[in-house]
Amino acid sequence: MTAQTLDVVTIGNALVDVLAKTDDAFLAAQDIPKGSMTLIDEARALHLYAAMGPAIEVSGGSAGNTATGVASLGGRAAFLGKVRDDQLGAIFTHDIRAAGVAFDVAHAVAGPATGRSMILVTPDAHRSMNTFLGAAVDFGPDDVIEAQVQAAAVTYMEGYLWDSPSAKAAFLKAARLAHAAGRKISLTLSDPFLVNRYKEELKDFVEKHVDIVFANEEEVCGLYDAANFDAALQAVRAHCEVAALTRSEKGAVIVAGEEVHVVDAAAVDKVVDTTGAGDLFAAGFLFGLTNGHGLYDSGRIGALAAAEVISHVGARPQLKLAELVTAELGASQAKRA
Amino acid sequence: MTAQTLDVVTIGNALVDVLAKTDDAFLAAQDIPKGSMTLIDEARALHLYAAMGPAIEVSGGSAGNTATGVASLGGRAAFLGKVRDDQLGAIFTHDIRAAGVAFDVAHAVAGPATGRSMILVTPDAHRSMNTFLGAAVDFGPDDVIEAQVQAAAVTYMEGYLWDSPSAKAAFLKAARLAHAAGRKISLTLSDPFLVNRYKEELKDFVEKHVDIVFANEEEVCGLYDAANFDAALQAVRAHCEVAALTRSEKGAVIVAGEEVHVVDAAAVDKVVDTTGAGDLFAAGFLFGLTNGHGLYDSGRIGALAAAEVISHVGARPQLKLAELVTAELGASQAKRA
Repeated sequence: MTAQTLDVVTIGNALVDVLAKTDDAFLAAQDIPKGSMTLIDEARALHLYAAMGPAIEVSGGSAGNTATGVASLGGRAAFLGKVRDDQLGAIFTHDIRAAGVAFDVAHAVAGPATGRSMILVTPDAHRSMNTFLGAAVDFGPDDVIEAQVQAAAVTYMEGYLWDSPSAKAAFLKAARLAHAAGRKISLTLSDPFLVNRYKEELKDFVEKHVDIVFANEEEVCGLYDAANFDAALQAVRAHCEVAALTRSEKGAVIVAGEEVHVVDAAAVDKVVDTTGAGDLFAAGFLFGLTNGHGLYDSGRIGALAAAEVISHVGARPQLKLAELVTAELGASQAKRA
Repeated sequence: MTAQTLDVVTIGNALVDVLAKTDDAFLAAQDIPKGSMTLIDEARALHLYAAMGPAIEVSGGSAGNTATGVASLGGRAAFLGKVRDDQLGAIFTHDIRAAGVAFDVAHAVAGPATGRSMILVTPDAHRSMNTFLGAAVDFGPDDVIEAQVQAAAVTYMEGYLWDSPSAKAAFLKAARLAHAAGRKISLTLSDPFLVNRYKEELKDFVEKHVDIVFANEEEVCGLYDAANFDAALQAVRAHCEVAALTRSEKGAVIVAGEEVHVVDAAAVDKVVDTTGAGDLFAAGFLFGLTNGHGLYDSGRIGALAAAEVISHVGARPQLKLAELVTAELGASQAKRA
């Protein structure tokens, strides 16, 4: 059996975030559904970019953010995804490697440019994402670095990949590889609209392949057509070994068979930009699980990591999360289950 | 005579800032002089980028920052500088136009990539800049849009351009055009090392061509080999119609012949990143002068604009400066000299 040299390998769309402040009137004028991720083509991307205000560029992408979170916590992380050999691709590659994440997938030398997500942040700190996938759609089974998947305690994937057939095929390959190596598979449902687009496929995939599922309230209710959060919780616990269900400021509920934990949200002085909250919750939770913490403490680490990332602009940690967690969890951090 | 349809046109290096947090140990290990701007070649840029941590990208460049400051104050601004037709060039172009600044110089279609400045910010909020000029060095006399220079009350130039012979030639051309049209020429000395590199040339240029000079204490003392600030002040007032001399937290001194004003620095809750402080002081001062304010009030507008930009990461305003100035200056803002 391959030695376990990685805690988490994440698979997802390699994207650079283009972040700008805006207001609700601009979202309405541009027909942008608030709080969701909308896929856009290149023409729409150019139109929207011309209409929006000055921006800053920060490396992003849901699974990439999660990998940097794991590394920031002191975990061993790798990322699988696709950029082109262009300036944005060089930026993405630099940032994720500089954060301590292994990123060894070959860059595309032809085809669309590196993908980007135009993220519009309203004064209430909500983010509305408009994503041009670019080179990310060409991520496929050949890009899955088998040795990394076999060496990682958990392979984590973002549901967003479902929008690309070749990425979905890569997904399934990674799931098979991981399970054959005795590892765990984890999936985040990513977005309520995505859940609606691929409901039956996702439900089937969760039931058959996923050990640890992440979802927010709206996503998990959508997946099971549940009338309320509790009904969704009962449905998902029958399908997965572990489900980590997040509810923004209401905290999270972790279910694993008979075991259920309620984890409060960590305090935040001022919520600036919610981009990356779910990604960093997943990072903290998976770091905890793969480093010997119990479900409750893993949830608390997730909540702390999420609180840090929503207190500033950008979806990757600015503080060394390992120090934050040690300071906040104190003795319980030292205690390994 | 051309109608005055612009308040300020600024000329400078078109750069994207690559901002990362660091510590003094990293600066020492990489031989980076703290608080200054160092020109680097492409090989050094690649080396440094690989060594530094995750970064964010924000449009910058001293004169570009000043132009966006003027626009944010409600002034009419244009920028002259050179980018390439690459992704960073598209980012620079978008951001400055979205800030309300006219930017109509043709993009280079060959030659070096769009320039960038790797800006390392230490915990004390000081910034150390490592600039690869890229396409900016090819800015030349043919890129000076004559109609804009003739239409602007003030043409403002950054001393940084002195490092490129073709940019310096463009500089001299713009100065002649502006004066022939009855307009004012303004120059910032930009950096103490630059003043040392080109001391005699700069002194001659200031004396012969510059109406409004900006300098910080170290720069103006360097230019005149002055033993102290007061000696430098007496030297520069004999050479220029107006000198605006900045002294960080000690505020600024404005001298214009017999007239002298002392302007206190505006209060800042927490200094986060001093990048752009001088650029935004110049923006506020020039906006004031070109919109009928007296020297003292213009200095106060400069101080307010500088205070806003050092309270966050990045060298361009995040608030609408016009509103900030109206709120702070109140009645005196309404009074036009």
